[in-house]
Amino acid sequence: MVSLPTESHESMSISSQNPMEPDEFRRQGHMMIDFLADYYKNLGSYPVRRQVEPGYLRERLPETAPNNSESIETILQDVTNDIIPGLTQWQSPNNFADFPSSGSIAGFLGEMLSTGFNAVGFNSMSSPAATELESIVVNWLGQMLALPKSFLLSTDGSSGGGGGVLQGTTEAILCTLTAARDKMLNKIGRESIGKLVVYASDQAHCALEKAAQIAGINPKNIRAVATSKATNFGLSPGSLQSAILADIESGLVPLFLCATIGTTSSMAVDPIGPLCEVAKMYGIWVHVDAAYAGSACICPEFRHFIDGVEEADSFSVNAHKWFFTTLDCCCLWVKDSISLVKVLSTIPEYMKNKATESKQTTLSRRFQSMKLWLVLRSYGIANLRTFLRSHVKMARHFQGLIGIDTRFEIVVPRTFGMVCFRLKPSAIFKQQRVESGYIETQTNETNAKLLESMNASGLTHMTHAVVGGVYMIRFSAGATLIEERHVTEAWMVVQEHTDTLLGALDGTILHEIVG
Amino acid sequence: MVSLPTESHESMSISSQNPMEPDEFRRQGHMMIDFLADYYKNLGSYPVRRQVEPGYLRERLPETAPNNSESIETILQDVTNDIIPGLTQWQSPNNFADFPSSGSIAGFLGEMLSTGFNAVGFNSMSSPAATELESIVVNWLGQMLALPKSFLLSTDGSSGGGGGVLQGTTEAILCTLTAARDKMLNKIGRESIGKLVVYASDQAHCALEKAAQIAGINPKNIRAVATSKATNFGLSPGSLQSAILADIESGLVPLFLCATIGTTSSMAVDPIGPLCEVAKMYGIWVHVDAAYAGSACICPEFRHFIDGVEEADSFSVNAHKWFFTTLDCCCLWVKDSISLVKVLSTIPEYMKNKATESKQTTLSRRFQSMKLWLVLRSYGIANLRTFLRSHVKMARHFQGLIGIDTRFEIVVPRTFGMVCFRLKPSAIFKQQRVESGYIETQTNETNAKLLESMNASGLTHMTHAVVGGVYMIRFSAGATLIEERHVTEAWMVVQEHTDTLLGALDGTILHEIVG
Repeated sequence: MVSLPTESHESMSISSQNPMEPDEFRRQGHMMIDFLADYYKNLGSYPVRRQVEPGYLRERLPETAPNNSESIETILQDVTNDIIPGLTQWQSPNNFADFPSSGSIAGFLGEMLSTGFNAVGFNSMSSPAATELESIVVNWLGQMLALPKSFLLSTDGSSGGGGGVLQGTTEAILCTLTAARDKMLNKIGRESIGKLVVYASDQAHCALEKAAQIAGINPKNIRAVATSKATNFGLSPGSLQSAILADIESGLVPLFLCATIGTTSSMAVDPIGPLCEVAKMYGIWVHVDAAYAGSACICPEFRHFIDGVEEADSFSVNAHKWFFTTLDCCCLWVKDSISLVKVLSTIPEYMKNKATESKQTTLSRRFQSMKLWLVLRSYGIANLRTFLRSHVKMARHFQGLIGIDTRFEIVVPRTFGMVCFRLKPSAIFKQQRVESGYIETQTNETNAKLLESMNASGLTHMTHAVVGGVYMIRFSAGATLIEERHVTEAWMVVQEHTDTLLGALDGTILHEIVG
Repeated sequence: MVSLPTESHESMSISSQNPMEPDEFRRQGHMMIDFLADYYKNLGSYPVRRQVEPGYLRERLPETAPNNSESIETILQDVTNDIIPGLTQWQSPNNFADFPSSGSIAGFLGEMLSTGFNAVGFNSMSSPAATELESIVVNWLGQMLALPKSFLLSTDGSSGGGGGVLQGTTEAILCTLTAARDKMLNKIGRESIGKLVVYASDQAHCALEKAAQIAGINPKNIRAVATSKATNFGLSPGSLQSAILADIESGLVPLFLCATIGTTSSMAVDPIGPLCEVAKMYGIWVHVDAAYAGSACICPEFRHFIDGVEEADSFSVNAHKWFFTTLDCCCLWVKDSISLVKVLSTIPEYMKNKATESKQTTLSRRFQSMKLWLVLRSYGIANLRTFLRSHVKMARHFQGLIGIDTRFEIVVPRTFGMVCFRLKPSAIFKQQRVESGYIETQTNETNAKLLESMNASGLTHMTHAVVGGVYMIRFSAGATLIEERHVTEAWMVVQEHTDTLLGALDGTILHEIVG
């Protein structure tokens, strides 16, 4: 046992103030708004990547919680000194890593409101506003995405069939997978759970694997179907069918397909229509994960990427990725929402006489829909399309800059706001008479060095992916504060670090090979 | 297909302003702080329970999202008119329903910071501050709870064995249950998943049932072991053992016990030590769910309620319930944290070279630990104990008031901040020569009428539970803004509505029976 902290001088420090005293709330709240406004104002000049090594914080913080209260001024000083340097500045206009984490004023204010009310949305009777606002705004977004009627609320507002809900991130897949699982097990018997098989391309997000592990799917029955450059790493319906047939041959039961619109690695798009055609032949539940790219589909010119969604069973978009709501806000639409309710609902007595249908993994839910409502209203459909198009335009701008420099190549065709590029082998090897496997390895390593060197500068931040054996640098434009000049500056950082790196290599790799 | 909203006048309304423009952030942020400060100031005068009927919102909101932007002023007006009346005012000092949803200034500010940074905490390399602050502050709280060393970080900060993490709510049980499941299946073979059995008392939170359903446990193998008034509805080790033995007899495999400290219905406390003794004989994973009552155990005088925790495998407290952090913030400590990592981790290439151990169901995590850090520092251990004790004192005050009025009785002994009471049969039936089953039914119905009548007034808000066939009204003191006068006022509401109700009954039930 750890001994309890001493209480000797406790009485000295006890504050008589209520921890939610409204005037103190006002004072400290205004201080925090100014703190964050200043942070946003200066964010472009912060190093984007963390400036510390893992393990740094333990040395800076005390070993135990303080016995007495500390002032908000002291705490904010520590946030500046100890926390900010340990964060990737996700909101920085110089952050082009991963996917965007796109905040906005409206999203922030919506989060303030839901935190302020702190209403626990575990059922619709307790706070109808929370439950109803959620189904209304998710329906609004569904309309903006031109989702088929089967995914939307019926005109009288009932959710008998289709409907949308907000989820955590991995939870959207977990909920639909468990719904599909129990629907199937009700047919074939629970003892067959070990036979269920889950499919996705080898480019799908690891959230599927995680969800399948949690839902009790045998890890051996998670199929990462191979993709290739021929389909730009989209899942081929033929490959899917072969995998399904092989499983049926082995006595297994195909259950669930997760198709992706805009994969994390390279923004690959799985062809939903043809995949659904295959899946439906075998009674497979098709979930379409459009976590990032789904947002863009509110623009008519991008909507075709989700053509065929009417044949799918469920569809999700992470509004916190590229739709200006802060973490987390995953929108999920399901045709057969009853199957979700069946697996996720329980009705204890202390909730009786209240509507207790549940479509989430969790009970104590925040009032998540508030921020989505504020984002949709504060900006309106027209501005939201403009914002998204501006990010795509910036990616196109970056792509154009890459195109001018013959040392680089675009590895996969750009869609949406992401550019996947690399230093070409020809920029690294002046003569290519060496073995090609060696060239690919060295090219990958050189690109990795280039990325690390750029990120270490703190001036920009990108991440990488390896697709088809090729290491590529991912440039993802979507941070809300981004302007064209940030893209141009990022390109200058790329060039500068390339010059330095290739200059240094002249004396090493190239020398070795040529010599 | 739903047709896309028209774009005809789109260009008219497009704002050229960046949706995170710092000065506009500042302006709107200050406005929101004032809005919420005013809300808190007036909260005591708001009707506590929603003032609308479910389904109300659809009639008030437009059918589609607006095409053009709307001002924050308009939106806040709608929040006042359309949202607040549809909410239970969880933070109201007159709210004694369910469990508290205890916000605080520090919790709110912490949430502002994490929303403001909007850092995605999917791995420790991306933002070491987020990962490390989490393990540090959860460790602080673990020390405050005097958890055994096996649940805490080792002195060098490594998390090889035990350690704490933040979770969603149901997720804490879901994560530990899946970890226990896979540990067992690795021993006995995956094909035995259908044999696994999960145990809890019939008073346990429905989160366990939900988690078990998600994790693929056969719903027939979820045991709600009966409790009785003899143990104040705590789980008896003998009953647990009988249930286990019966299952083993039937060829099933006991897997997981969820013991509860402070049940939702009646604040029952399961005896952890003796239960662990039984469970350990059969290799069962013991999770201790101290969602609400765990907070109080930072006070030495309440610590004995979790005696025996050193024998358990995992332990959780929902800091958003009664520890001044807003939704959601569930602290989970696990002895064998590696087993959590095993079932919840996946390592895709785009995360390689980064620490990607995961102990949560979700990947896109908010920076949840910030608010817990602010709460611990802003108030300090001494004040936190004082706050919790003051809520217990208020429950004791209410209990005292009940004790004076002979029409009422306390149904189960009060522990922590909750009082379970009811109108006694003798207050309803002047002569009890009628059949006792009839009396119990009528007593339950009369208490239900009393509760509904009080809640409909909007002056107070309590909820109910039925334990051992007895309908009781739950008075739960823990809203942060609560003062002693609110308790006294609530008692006056109880008395007033009792007078009216019993007065009306004089002409009906009593007349019928006596006549």
